[in-house]
Amino acid sequence: MSKDKITAKSENYSEWYNQLIQKAEMADYSPVRGCMVVRPYGWALWENIQKALNTRFKATGHENAAFPLFIPMSFLEKEKEHVEGFSPELAVVTHGGGQKLEEPLVVRPTSETIIGHMYAKWIKSYRDLPVLINQWANVVRWEMRTRLFLRTLEFYWQEGHTAHATAQEAEEETLRMLHVYEDFAKNEAAIPVICGRKSETEKFAGAVHSYTIEAMMGDTKALQSGTSHYLGQNFAKAFDIQYLDDQNTLQHCWTTSWGLSTRFIGAIIMTHGDDQGLVLPPRLAPIQVVVVPIFRNDEEKAQVMQYTEKVMEQLGCFRAKLDDRFEQTPGFKFNDWEMRGVPLRVEIGPRDVANQKVVIARRDIPGKPGKSFVPFNELTQQITTLLDDIHDSLLAKATAFRDEHIVETATYDELKTVVENGWAYSYWCESAECEAKVKQDTKATTRCIPLEQDHKSGKCVVCGKETQTKVYFAKAY
Amino acid sequence: MSKDKITAKSENYSEWYNQLIQKAEMADYSPVRGCMVVRPYGWALWENIQKALNTRFKATGHENAAFPLFIPMSFLEKEKEHVEGFSPELAVVTHGGGQKLEEPLVVRPTSETIIGHMYAKWIKSYRDLPVLINQWANVVRWEMRTRLFLRTLEFYWQEGHTAHATAQEAEEETLRMLHVYEDFAKNEAAIPVICGRKSETEKFAGAVHSYTIEAMMGDTKALQSGTSHYLGQNFAKAFDIQYLDDQNTLQHCWTTSWGLSTRFIGAIIMTHGDDQGLVLPPRLAPIQVVVVPIFRNDEEKAQVMQYTEKVMEQLGCFRAKLDDRFEQTPGFKFNDWEMRGVPLRVEIGPRDVANQKVVIARRDIPGKPGKSFVPFNELTQQITTLLDDIHDSLLAKATAFRDEHIVETATYDELKTVVENGWAYSYWCESAECEAKVKQDTKATTRCIPLEQDHKSGKCVVCGKETQTKVYFAKAY
Repeated sequence: MSKDKITAKSENYSEWYNQLIQKAEMADYSPVRGCMVVRPYGWALWENIQKALNTRFKATGHENAAFPLFIPMSFLEKEKEHVEGFSPELAVVTHGGGQKLEEPLVVRPTSETIIGHMYAKWIKSYRDLPVLINQWANVVRWEMRTRLFLRTLEFYWQEGHTAHATAQEAEEETLRMLHVYEDFAKNEAAIPVICGRKSETEKFAGAVHSYTIEAMMGDTKALQSGTSHYLGQNFAKAFDIQYLDDQNTLQHCWTTSWGLSTRFIGAIIMTHGDDQGLVLPPRLAPIQVVVVPIFRNDEEKAQVMQYTEKVMEQLGCFRAKLDDRFEQTPGFKFNDWEMRGVPLRVEIGPRDVANQKVVIARRDIPGKPGKSFVPFNELTQQITTLLDDIHDSLLAKATAFRDEHIVETATYDELKTVVENGWAYSYWCESAECEAKVKQDTKATTRCIPLEQDHKSGKCVVCGKETQTKVYFAKAY
Repeated sequence: MSKDKITAKSENYSEWYNQLIQKAEMADYSPVRGCMVVRPYGWALWENIQKALNTRFKATGHENAAFPLFIPMSFLEKEKEHVEGFSPELAVVTHGGGQKLEEPLVVRPTSETIIGHMYAKWIKSYRDLPVLINQWANVVRWEMRTRLFLRTLEFYWQEGHTAHATAQEAEEETLRMLHVYEDFAKNEAAIPVICGRKSETEKFAGAVHSYTIEAMMGDTKALQSGTSHYLGQNFAKAFDIQYLDDQNTLQHCWTTSWGLSTRFIGAIIMTHGDDQGLVLPPRLAPIQVVVVPIFRNDEEKAQVMQYTEKVMEQLGCFRAKLDDRFEQTPGFKFNDWEMRGVPLRVEIGPRDVANQKVVIARRDIPGKPGKSFVPFNELTQQITTLLDDIHDSLLAKATAFRDEHIVETATYDELKTVVENGWAYSYWCESAECEAKVKQDTKATTRCIPLEQDHKSGKCVVCGKETQTKVYFAKAY
């Protein structure tokens, strides 16, 4: 596969992205339009994402469960904004076991409704609260234009759903989980994100407020990488999620939901990837270290392989892989693993055996500057350090790139120029009209009103009205 | 919940099973007929099952991936027996995004067809073989009579799908994975199983041979707990899964598939449970040790809770839970955790603090005989030993129960009596007619032709024909 060159990012970003995913065997197209097959290398990345998030969900008191795939159509109709938002995207089961169903079933596009129904059954008293449940699931949204990982008919995600006794607790939970996503993105995926609130137009159908982590991709487009919704009592009222408070009075709960999906794999690819291929962040990479033995004859092979075995034992604490495809040249292997984004490559030749060393090459620093000789007895410690260095360096690079492409814009003309190749950070009066005008003129949308604001005053970049709100405008995936 | 007594097993086994699942909060009914909600306690058990199997799948060279939920109807029709077997059970999506679909999509009942399609695309040469992939997924089969965990419209499982260059390799893989299931059942779930081959009538639709692990439940009914199928070239021919061999000749692959589902949770409940509730096998139990502090006043509380904190630190290497619901009595908690099947309970009262000991009670041995005093500094070691003891003891008990209820039957009258409360082990001529007669007369089916046979000769228990085959007949879930 890796013989054929990948299209350069600068030449055709979208083509680069599609080719890379297929060549690195992350995913493939399925025979059903818009669905994807996640191949073992892509799924291993997703499993590492799951582990990193599960640890954080557990530490914040959440438990996993599983709710049904099918939702009665009538459930969706109970929350007005929710059904309006989702009905154009539904897949509908009309027949089961050879019979036409009395009521069609929707394949879940998200699970607030069916989980709301169950919470109403389970929650009786304030002693049952809070309910803090997450599920890892597949969901289906009938999208017209699809892209592997970024937008597929079926995708994989986690959706957290919580119920609380007070509005304040639910609001705190919403922001707590937003910051869990921020921490995960930054400290596991080396992706800097901006936490903020979505505009009324861009919020989740049925939410009071939606929050997002927004990341900048390598082509400067924005990607909504995870969202957390404060649902107020909207779903509690639609589904009668009620509890007896300590005064024995019946109250509606306050609920939240929050999700992060396989789209995040797209974010990883587009944040760090380069013209050689993937660059995977070390803490999530399915393979952290690949070992390539090098020899010219059987005598060297025997020596090198014996030493390699000892090296592999040392690497037991990492996700390490030995490339023992003897029919391939070392050069082929170097290119192949670079394309697949493995953070570190260990090369072992006859001279390394003699010196009881190995050569380590960094994926993120090409050529000689990224290479070092490491003595056998320092392997574990140096690789640990190198993986941390790579993480820090990827994060710093992505942060610098992002910050270079964010411009504070005071005039509308400026904004129009900036969003061609970056994000505009501007005062905005929060009106849907001004938001719509920007979208129509430039295809850029409001990405988020950042949580951190200086709360000074300024003029809306579109209409000139005085406002304290600043927002990011950008083209987005 | 635990205030209300559970119906006794002997009184109404089926009612006991249903009540237990709901009271222990393992699962609940969903608003859609036949679908279930797996609650956190049930899902945590499933996650432990997943971990135990994943370790074994990885050790045998398999990788996880994810294939689409939707399968074009035409795919199912490519393998004749497969579509005949599954078409009465299909859920069909006819509408997507508000439009009627050109070709209806089936919600996967199993994935041989769509995976076969992808393998045909990926496999080119003998160098690409074997392909060893597993997926954890939800599948849908439109069952008429459903039971929580045992038979639900939607269920969760893993399905392994492999492709090989030779029939022999594929047959070896089929049996290898059968023995992986056997090892898992015995050494993780403490469930003794019998490995055997399914009859032609009972085999998977599209398989050449199906193998099964069969377990005996507490009411002596059989439960098919995991299956492994040798598919020959049936699916390879239907989906053109071909490879160039080392002579450059195009050959069809030989494939296998194997699966174990959330039905296995039903097996755990029904193998070990008793009239007090669940008895969970220690290696899979979501909570291995529950700690209950006991005190009568604030002074005692302070002492006990301080010591309890030290105990909890010691228990860090187990799945331990502190029950700090101060509004509940110790007696309530004892019953509650017994009902939920936690293998060990640690009780800590003021006297235990004074003696630097704790009381440990075994779930599987009720009352005094199951209790012991354990010094603080022996906690970890003794709990490790106790958990292993419980495992061994559960396995021994289930094996003894099973063996007591298997009877070698030489006459048809004997068989008819035995299958009322056990399994009949009998010579059988392998004809579908004799099998059908037994089913009609007794509701018992052939469960499996065990792999281990003495290969002596005898007379078919039904028709008297000479045969070397012995089979288990039993009523089954």
